[in-house]
Amino acid sequence: APAPAPGVGRGRARRGTVAVRAEADTAAAGSGINPAIRKEEAKVVDTVLAGELSKPLTPYCRCWRSGTFPLCDGSHVKHNKATGDNVGPLLVKK
Amino acid sequence: APAPAPGVGRGRARRGTVAVRAEADTAAAGSGINPAIRKEEAKVVDTVLAGELSKPLTPYCRCWRSGTFPLCDGSHVKHNKATGDNVGPLLVKK
Ligand code: FES
Ligand code: FES
Repeated sequence: APAPAPGVGRGRARRGTVAVRAEADTAAAGSGINPAIRKEEAKVVDTVLAGELSKPLTPYCRCWRSGTFPLCDGSHVKHNKATGDNVGPLLVKK
Repeated sequence: APAPAPGVGRGRARRGTVAVRAEADTAAAGSGINPAIRKEEAKVVDTVLAGELSKPLTPYCRCWRSGTFPLCDGSHVKHNKATGDNVGPLLVKK
């Protein structure tokens, strides 16, 4: 595993509610990309069971701004306009 | 579609190499989340054909730091340690 940047806290060493709040603040203010989704989790991982998808094509969020995360709800459009970014969803086809 | 924030440029109005560079710089310096991947594209969208996946479980990147994007190469670990963020991949199961 790569060494953390000097002077930067290691997430693993921080525990409990206060530490989690501090991490969320850091991510929102600095170069984190997830401002608000499931910040109580050390790492947000989701699993798609492709065989059980109801629609032929399902968009999954990669912008961390969706109100229906892990699904994409189109919020990447607002994010891209506001920041000049170019992110979009991952489309999973059955 | 939501109105762009006041004073913020609209990506669609900018064309050509210089404009694309400007957008990439904005995203890297500001609140964009994709610093470098396929910045020549207006929106980075990828499609997974679930039926054609070679492995039973395939991780897809949501941190925009992977060297094998759209696949996850574990770069989210370094990003999370450096920023206090908590992002991780989308796992697609056959
Ligand atoms: S809402 Fe996040 S990628 Fe579409
Ligand atoms: S490398 Fe981006 S989520 Fe793993």
